[in-house]
Amino acid sequence: MLLHDDPAHAFMPYPPVAVPSARTGALADLTFAAKDLFDVAGYPTGGGNPLMLAQSGIKNRTAPAVQALLDAGARFVGKTHTDELAFSMNGRNAHFGTPINGAAPDRIPGGSSSGSASAVSNRLCDTALGTDTGGSVRAPASHCGLYGIRPTHGRVSLQRALDLSPSFDTCGFFARDARTFGRVADVMLGADTAPLPARVRVLRPDDAWALIAAEPAEALAEAVARVEAVAGGAARCTLALDSIDTMYMAYRHAQGREAWMVDGPIIERFGAPLGPGVAERFAWSSRLTDAEVAAADVFRARFRAHLAALLGDDGVLVLPTMPDVAPLLSADESALEAYRATAIRLLCTAGLAGVPQVSMPLARRLGVPLGLSLIGPVGSDRSLVALAEAIGA
Amino acid sequence: MLLHDDPAHAFMPYPPVAVPSARTGALADLTFAAKDLFDVAGYPTGGGNPLMLAQSGIKNRTAPAVQALLDAGARFVGKTHTDELAFSMNGRNAHFGTPINGAAPDRIPGGSSSGSASAVSNRLCDTALGTDTGGSVRAPASHCGLYGIRPTHGRVSLQRALDLSPSFDTCGFFARDARTFGRVADVMLGADTAPLPARVRVLRPDDAWALIAAEPAEALAEAVARVEAVAGGAARCTLALDSIDTMYMAYRHAQGREAWMVDGPIIERFGAPLGPGVAERFAWSSRLTDAEVAAADVFRARFRAHLAALLGDDGVLVLPTMPDVAPLLSADESALEAYRATAIRLLCTAGLAGVPQVSMPLARRLGVPLGLSLIGPVGSDRSLVALAEAIGA
Repeated sequence: MLLHDDPAHAFMPYPPVAVPSARTGALADLTFAAKDLFDVAGYPTGGGNPLMLAQSGIKNRTAPAVQALLDAGARFVGKTHTDELAFSMNGRNAHFGTPINGAAPDRIPGGSSSGSASAVSNRLCDTALGTDTGGSVRAPASHCGLYGIRPTHGRVSLQRALDLSPSFDTCGFFARDARTFGRVADVMLGADTAPLPARVRVLRPDDAWALIAAEPAEALAEAVARVEAVAGGAARCTLALDSIDTMYMAYRHAQGREAWMVDGPIIERFGAPLGPGVAERFAWSSRLTDAEVAAADVFRARFRAHLAALLGDDGVLVLPTMPDVAPLLSADESALEAYRATAIRLLCTAGLAGVPQVSMPLARRLGVPLGLSLIGPVGSDRSLVALAEAIGA
Repeated sequence: MLLHDDPAHAFMPYPPVAVPSARTGALADLTFAAKDLFDVAGYPTGGGNPLMLAQSGIKNRTAPAVQALLDAGARFVGKTHTDELAFSMNGRNAHFGTPINGAAPDRIPGGSSSGSASAVSNRLCDTALGTDTGGSVRAPASHCGLYGIRPTHGRVSLQRALDLSPSFDTCGFFARDARTFGRVADVMLGADTAPLPARVRVLRPDDAWALIAAEPAEALAEAVARVEAVAGGAARCTLALDSIDTMYMAYRHAQGREAWMVDGPIIERFGAPLGPGVAERFAWSSRLTDAEVAAADVFRARFRAHLAALLGDDGVLVLPTMPDVAPLLSADESALEAYRATAIRLLCTAGLAGVPQVSMPLARRLGVPLGLSLIGPVGSDRSLVALAEAIGA
């Protein structure tokens, strides 16, 4: 079906194969898609790279994250485009094209879970699985006007999914409305190991907010007020340990080394031509020194402890998901790189600390969406989604 | 096997599947590969484009041209890289990389049958199938130092092979030596419908030779002398009807329109990003007017008659296959476009008239190969190969 009717360019054009769903269950009325990083029996797993696709073969087992939705009765409608090897957050794939942002068709969808966000924002399905290493669910959620979650690291299975940087990779999902988001969360997240208390402590990190310009901050003000109305007034805090730039470099060094360990062999073996941005990032990653990576790992352990102390078991950070609304499709690669550098400074907290983050489509600017995020302690995922549901209700 | 050991980057990295060969027969001692335009049961057919690959699915039938070699006992070793949708002759694929020219590793292999020429020139197999629309066997044969044939149009089946421009497309093949070339020709071509007589009339088209520079012409002089020693002294002639430029434009208009009719729908449907050169050519093809195409068709009929009269049933043209040795890998796109424009002027005769052409690796310049070609009348293919065997012996 979708092979012949995908005006949003959200889906990989694989020959459709029947994927059995329980058809009854909590999500029996929902359709879903999965990023082309997850194995689905009967399909290849392309990972946004042509040589990865060529050597994939047809998979005969389905990833547990996909199976969880099928077991809950949701109906699978297709595999969605991803940025190349998931190592980008803009949604432009040099080999497969750019999925259309359903909320802002003249702007990039964001990525790397670009096709999943495109499919949901274009109403081609109700929910979709993505992965988030450094922002790959949160960025497209913000750009496409969707609810999206990066769960606590390790909470949702990434078995039978292509890795990017395993100690950062997570499996998240998108929905258009808070209610659907909560229902999918019930299935994908289950019960919390560390639920938030009824009364949370809202924290507004000044240093994170200082990263964005006045206009997007202003556009987000009303959404922040909604959070405070539901969850209580925000106390100001400082998020960074040492500095935001230290966090940024630690994230990039640790994540880059893992990405090169995962994908370096296939890149070197097949001599795969990589798209713009992706090629430069892998080349940069290949040159990281052991000293840089070791320093990043030490910082990461310190930051994890720092954030655990800051959040306790009741702290919730409220911060912008992305620096601004999605850049225009006409943006050049250097403008996207500059945008990316600020975005990573906002996004790296959850990756470095392994904590859950939910992006909510509560603001607009220039007529297009802008997300506001909540970050909670490790294991508070379902509570965080419940809070987003209450705010979005 | 090849999946794990392809230093030449000649093969698509598909998971290897057993392809049954007769194992006995005329070619039982030979291995072969097939361009990834031909269906082989158990494999997808990618056509050098990632979205074409994604929507291919696994084929359950094998193309007759491939089957002919299997039936003759040859053993299939893999599917080879092709220029994107076969619409290029340089061998650089923006999505899948550039196969290595076994005779000149610092130079382009030529294309679009790039991987087949790479596999044979790197001794990864004995023969390989390609397709030739406007030079896609002849160009890489010349660049990689191989024997290669573009047969009479329609002589070898292109069933279950991706089209480029059906009224120009042909199925050809490569070999490193004249003896193997002749043995494969026995299987692929069978007996001639219009065999050449024992004594042929060698013709040297002044206007074709005038297209190339003094140095490559000089490098080819000894090879021409070998042709004359075997087949008799060459009479000078003029090849073009009206002018070489008229031939060139007629070829491009007729071939371009067909290419757009074949691939336009998939390009428009999937919004596939195309590599440099290929994208511009398809865009150019999409804008051809009916008047341009009609004029090209009229010219083509006139040229066919003109060439039939020139060749009679005993004429053999001797001409350079390509303007020069393969350009360096470092050549930029505009240099390759200029080279291509001269190359098409040399190559378009066979396409416009549907006649067979054999390229022989009889010359070298700058330490790398340069091909000399023979063109014969429609249906003289096997005789032409026999002539090449006698010259190459």
